[in-house]
Amino acid sequence: MTDIAPNTRVLLASRPHGEPTSDNFTIESGPIPTPGEGEVLLRTIYLSLDPYMRGRMSAAKSYAAPFEVGEPMQGGIVAEVVESRADSLRPGDVVLAYGGWQTYGVAVASHVRKLDPAQAPVSTALGVLGMPGFTAYAGLLEIGKPQPGETVVVAAAAGPVGSAVGQIARIKGARAVGIAGGAAKVAWLEELGFDVALDHRSPTFADDLKAAVPDGIDVYFENVGGHVWDAVLPRLNTYARVPVCGLVAHYNETEPPAGPDRSVRLMTSILTKGLTVRGFIQTEFVKTHQAAFQADAAGWLRDGSLRHREDVVEGLEHAPAALIGLLKGKNFGKLLVQVGPDPTR
Amino acid sequence: MTDIAPNTRVLLASRPHGEPTSDNFTIESGPIPTPGEGEVLLRTIYLSLDPYMRGRMSAAKSYAAPFEVGEPMQGGIVAEVVESRADSLRPGDVVLAYGGWQTYGVAVASHVRKLDPAQAPVSTALGVLGMPGFTAYAGLLEIGKPQPGETVVVAAAAGPVGSAVGQIARIKGARAVGIAGGAAKVAWLEELGFDVALDHRSPTFADDLKAAVPDGIDVYFENVGGHVWDAVLPRLNTYARVPVCGLVAHYNETEPPAGPDRSVRLMTSILTKGLTVRGFIQTEFVKTHQAAFQADAAGWLRDGSLRHREDVVEGLEHAPAALIGLLKGKNFGKLLVQVGPDPTR
Repeated sequence: MTDIAPNTRVLLASRPHGEPTSDNFTIESGPIPTPGEGEVLLRTIYLSLDPYMRGRMSAAKSYAAPFEVGEPMQGGIVAEVVESRADSLRPGDVVLAYGGWQTYGVAVASHVRKLDPAQAPVSTALGVLGMPGFTAYAGLLEIGKPQPGETVVVAAAAGPVGSAVGQIARIKGARAVGIAGGAAKVAWLEELGFDVALDHRSPTFADDLKAAVPDGIDVYFENVGGHVWDAVLPRLNTYARVPVCGLVAHYNETEPPAGPDRSVRLMTSILTKGLTVRGFIQTEFVKTHQAAFQADAAGWLRDGSLRHREDVVEGLEHAPAALIGLLKGKNFGKLLVQVGPDPTR
Repeated sequence: MTDIAPNTRVLLASRPHGEPTSDNFTIESGPIPTPGEGEVLLRTIYLSLDPYMRGRMSAAKSYAAPFEVGEPMQGGIVAEVVESRADSLRPGDVVLAYGGWQTYGVAVASHVRKLDPAQAPVSTALGVLGMPGFTAYAGLLEIGKPQPGETVVVAAAAGPVGSAVGQIARIKGARAVGIAGGAAKVAWLEELGFDVALDHRSPTFADDLKAAVPDGIDVYFENVGGHVWDAVLPRLNTYARVPVCGLVAHYNETEPPAGPDRSVRLMTSILTKGLTVRGFIQTEFVKTHQAAFQADAAGWLRDGSLRHREDVVEGLEHAPAALIGLLKGKNFGKLLVQVGPDPTR
């Protein structure tokens, strides 16, 4: 049992208009739920914060149903089993689950995955060995299809998806150009072995990018949009591939940007360059590629060719501010909220 | 020999700004050229007019080099060999070639393809059995990948590409919705067996399209852009495929359309629907798919499952006006200019 008594929950209080604020969240305290047959009671250790959550705070139709107002925010969690009414799990087991922003929750045992702390730190199941890492792996390899010697560009490159994209590109023999905001992130990308790391906040960013890709861009892994995409588009080579897994620069926009209408220019580039622009959500590839990813990524993590970084915020009550910051690029590495002690460390 | 004496040529006189006008062309008369070793002298029978030619009249970089000012316009032609200095061809042979807008021209014999008038009318080598038919075949089957029961939508459906797209979609078991301008074209699409044919000039077009695709759109074959694409985008299903082979509605635009900037909305649709938007030029598929196309299309033509229509303009001197009209959708079927008599008819 933790010292956060008895069950703290963060609810979606209202839908944001534009940038979320603390007013969109409520923190409440309630009873600890009781698991039914086949279920487990979970104590949350880590909560994953991810850009896609902004979309689910809105009512607009997307690939996932919106969060309900008055209900807990939801996301990936790593949690400890405190009570089990299922044969497959025992108290003390640490699992990956999808759950609410709360200290305690109930889950169907067959819906969670038991983690082995001896294999890797359990928090990596939310990052480099979890959804973000798999997003990078599946999108880059199945849509981007980088060939040895080709140039791969990725934005938000210091984030958990982008950092994996660049490193996997290099593992596959491609040249990796990473784009991030600020000197510290750029320095870390260089440390990771990106061939070039660029700061998109630089006033000369578009020229810096042009100079960094003398042979053009063969794969652009799109998770940002905005002025980075504007700088990338003219540099794309014939038959370039653009896996699109996020557009975080636009998530807080309340109306279309001012004109001119550049959608025609975009379609014309797609036509004249024979581009492939392909949106995806990692769930699409789970059945076909998850096993290969787990094996590959665990091996790369062990041999040091895939490195990662976590940005851990302490305390469930800080989750709203951390998510608001994430949408502004304030995190540095995979953003986690530590809700309670990690018994495996 | 024809009665157009001695060699008439249509030159690009100047690059159009916006819509081409007759001032952008010059007609001149000159000597008949002499073939060198390995070359043939060709008398043009049919000239193909195609929307892509508008792009080549501009100096902007694209997938093909621009036409040169002061030089003949160029395109696909069907021609008769009048003199041969190559073993592979004899006078009287009818060939498919790439040549200038002129009554006589010289070609390298190995660059032309001899046609068999007994197989199909030679003009079809510029249409249903040629580049437009192959564009439809490769783009639809390799990028669109229609599955039985899926809904395929195509615009400019009375044109040589669009009419083939819809008919091949039906051959493959998909539902075909064709969009064209005007009642006559709509009636012809119905005659061809399109499941639904719509007039994009109707004030209720967007609603008509919505009603025509109760299960959404799985493949949109894009060759137009403009307000048709605007109506299609919200109807695309998750994982829909959009082969992009043309944007004729925009070819004469001189600047980006007024705002708001809808490129973000487009990228957001690509992301949230997992769309594949893929530009292509048929040349990309020639090595891998041309033989299969020739066999399939000739068979479908024979058994009546693939029908086509030609719009023949008489006289080389009318080629400029015909091309200007093509860009406004004035043609009805594959637009050809008959430059001289067809000895196979």
